[in-house]
Amino acid sequence: MKVAVYPGSFDPVTNGHIDIINKTSKLFDKMVVAVIHNVSKKALFTLAEREEMVKENTKHLDNVNVESFSGLLADYVRQKQACAIIRGLRTAADFEYEMYIAMANKTLYPSAETVFVLADSKYIYISSSIVKEVALLNGSVAELVPESVNKALALKKAAMKI
Amino acid sequence: MKVAVYPGSFDPVTNGHIDIINKTSKLFDKMVVAVIHNVSKKALFTLAEREEMVKENTKHLDNVNVESFSGLLADYVRQKQACAIIRGLRTAADFEYEMYIAMANKTLYPSAETVFVLADSKYIYISSSIVKEVALLNGSVAELVPESVNKALALKKAAMKI
Amino acid sequence: MKVAVYPGSFDPVTNGHIDIINKTSKLFDKMVVAVIHNVSKKALFTLAEREEMVKENTKHLDNVNVESFSGLLADYVRQKQACAIIRGLRTAADFEYEMYIAMANKTLYPSAETVFVLADSKYIYISSSIVKEVALLNGSVAELVPESVNKALALKKAAMKI
Amino acid sequence: MKVAVYPGSFDPVTNGHIDIINKTSKLFDKMVVAVIHNVSKKALFTLAEREEMVKENTKHLDNVNVESFSGLLADYVRQKQACAIIRGLRTAADFEYEMYIAMANKTLYPSAETVFVLADSKYIYISSSIVKEVALLNGSVAELVPESVNKALALKKAAMKI
Amino acid sequence: MKVAVYPGSFDPVTNGHIDIINKTSKLFDKMVVAVIHNVSKKALFTLAEREEMVKENTKHLDNVNVESFSGLLADYVRQKQACAIIRGLRTAADFEYEMYIAMANKTLYPSAETVFVLADSKYIYISSSIVKEVALLNGSVAELVPESVNKALALKKAAMKI
Amino acid sequence: MKVAVYPGSFDPVTNGHIDIINKTSKLFDKMVVAVIHNVSKKALFTLAEREEMVKENTKHLDNVNVESFSGLLADYVRQKQACAIIRGLRTAADFEYEMYIAMANKTLYPSAETVFVLADSKYIYISSSIVKEVALLNGSVAELVPESVNKALALKKAAMKI
Repeated sequence: MKVAVYPGSFDPVTNGHIDIINKTSKLFDKMVVAVIHNVSKKALFTLAEREEMVKENTKHLDNVNVESFSGLLADYVRQKQACAIIRGLRTAADFEYEMYIAMANKTLYPSAETVFVLADSKYIYISSSIVKEVALLNGSVAELVPESVNKALALKKAAMKI
Repeated sequence: MKVAVYPGSFDPVTNGHIDIINKTSKLFDKMVVAVIHNVSKKALFTLAEREEMVKENTKHLDNVNVESFSGLLADYVRQKQACAIIRGLRTAADFEYEMYIAMANKTLYPSAETVFVLADSKYIYISSSIVKEVALLNGSVAELVPESVNKALALKKAAMKI
Repeated sequence: MKVAVYPGSFDPVTNGHIDIINKTSKLFDKMVVAVIHNVSKKALFTLAEREEMVKENTKHLDNVNVESFSGLLADYVRQKQACAIIRGLRTAADFEYEMYIAMANKTLYPSAETVFVLADSKYIYISSSIVKEVALLNGSVAELVPESVNKALALKKAAMKI
Repeated sequence: MKVAVYPGSFDPVTNGHIDIINKTSKLFDKMVVAVIHNVSKKALFTLAEREEMVKENTKHLDNVNVESFSGLLADYVRQKQACAIIRGLRTAADFEYEMYIAMANKTLYPSAETVFVLADSKYIYISSSIVKEVALLNGSVAELVPESVNKALALKKAAMKI
Repeated sequence: MKVAVYPGSFDPVTNGHIDIINKTSKLFDKMVVAVIHNVSKKALFTLAEREEMVKENTKHLDNVNVESFSGLLADYVRQKQACAIIRGLRTAADFEYEMYIAMANKTLYPSAETVFVLADSKYIYISSSIVKEVALLNGSVAELVPESVNKALALKKAAMKI
Repeated sequence: MKVAVYPGSFDPVTNGHIDIINKTSKLFDKMVVAVIHNVSKKALFTLAEREEMVKENTKHLDNVNVESFSGLLADYVRQKQACAIIRGLRTAADFEYEMYIAMANKTLYPSAETVFVLADSKYIYISSSIVKEVALLNGSVAELVPESVNKALALKKAAMKI
């Protein structure tokens, strides 16, 4: 059984991420979306909220599991016995950054390949950072994220009393 | 069964190509290496020679077939019922060029994803063009190509009376 | 009156070019689409055919003229008393190439600025080269070019007896 | 009347920014230089200081207004009824970052285009960050910024007792 | 006598840095490795520790001195009467960033050139940041850094009680 | 004695090339400018003309020799007992292309390093290709090339009866 891991912060998950998951879930027997618990990086949503938002928007895909993890990605991939690490690419700058990470992961765990896929061109400018920036400045992100995420952003803003 | 197609001119196949084939053959149930017959692009080796050199150097991989094709890649991929098109990436410039091709192929045949993998860093500077240029100027390419390709290059040079 | 020149080979004009013309015609009082007559570069369509295809697909825009020119772009821009040269950008590689040309034009004719605009993300992978390659390999380009260009490509192929 | 908005932090305004303003003010009937009030990003100069420095160095241009704004750029551009957002480009890395922002702004307010212009090659390495870094380490920035900004930097350093 | 300065944070020094020092020390009569004391950037290792680690791993090179410095690099290079500033390059993104710095340094001190050299391809993905990230997540960095640095990282982690 | 080789087609030599030669001749004891005799690439100027134009414009530099060579660069560098190969860089795209060549040369002749230097920013857009294109379209290249090259271009055009 071919297993792929798709790691990310998903703070929050965007339509671009969901597009990547839809596409790559067809390429492997099983896919684990792995929400990163990074203690040194401040997230807008809690780990549980981020994991829940991904689950909510991938429940139509039978072979996709959503989990969270902390520590070294290479160790997590080994534990899942995955053969592939999935990363979405949007531009050349993305690629250069990802190339370093992929080469480091290959050294740390040679049995998995990082495979890069393209988001659909209509999602090319969407990132979690842009979603948060636009939303917190009261712009509409309804076309950039799933409906449940759009609502969660509104609630988060209300809670922050912005 | 998940089938992937790895298209290329392979004029000639290099250690970088073989590295990509070794790696990605583990990710899919079956892999077709598809040697492109491009009538408008002059090749050093004939289509038959190029196909034979790839076969010779992938015969240790049970799930890899080597074929040639002409016409539109998207049509060939549809005919093979493949879910993935494999492309190796070395640098950001590679990526930009490949991104266009991948997006065009997605429009022409939406059922297959282009997946990009990295060649090992020790193969990062190797391309068929550099191999040919170095070989034709009497430099050694023994570390850049499989042994059988090295011999074929020497014979080709002798035949060209260089 | 602010005049802008949009130069290109338009061999053939694509939906991406038309998108750029639609957008930038709103930014200037008058816009001249200038089809380049480049004797040293072999085109699929004749200069007259290329000019006609652009005219056909921009006739809804009152402030857009379509012309052809040969010689130095900077001289043509001076003659048109234009303040701007329009260029579409798709990726970082486009930018680097265009940056050189823009700097050279600035030296040759300092009174005009090159202004870059983005094609819509859904046209990001479309270029005249890809259109020709796909069409000549019998792929469908109906979504990549205007209808009249699609027909012209079919006629051209028939004439070439491909 | 064609209005363009040129947004930026201008912390502080550099000779590169002034070059962009000089050039693009000729392309549009009116140009608004919009100094961003970003509460989450710490600036060296106050909003009022930054606005004043831009005003001081653009007062020779009749059709240029300098303002400050907070909130979403797309909302501000709509309010100004501008048809264009101006951004300077120096390198391919600039372009990739700006492309995302431009695409997001296009979605948020489709009536304005982001147009990119090149700074003169002699300003290609100048950014507000480099100006601040060099000045705070006691290097001369007299060739990088207008004279009034050079003085303001010296006063700011004296006030910080560096 | 031709003197070159190789500045960096070296937090910590990696096999990639050592490779650059080995190579470039052959190109100049004397080479000064200059460890940057940057008060505004938090380092994992102290200035003294970083300097010591570089010394330990370059003591086989007779014409290499290791020093630390603060303030403007251009001033330090002038004081050393150096004709060259050495910088390692790994990718195009590195280059764009370094190009700005090099151009600024050229303006500040025109008598020295920045010369760029490539790390060996097997070190292409190694940076001090990746070394720290992997080490602090309990991954092995034994192939990425000299043995003494590997030990120092282990001690640092123990001291941090991670 | 430290010897550097600066290889190129120099068809024709530009102010950018001369800037690189001026700068790097100060870094090494001796510098050889090596004009490439490439039988498969059609040049505007003959090998003798190209060599003569470089000589004419570097005669003020005592430690610079101008030669021509054919065959593999690595073999030529070995024969010259050079420790460095000089290449000018203008942009990130230049870098990616040059990186491949540098890595290949390192494999073919490990005793020499490729060192990259930046042309002055005012020469950043100048290349031999742009010079030829502008000159042959009757544009002025007086600011892009030395005076003797400007004259040679005019004579070449007259001879071509353009």
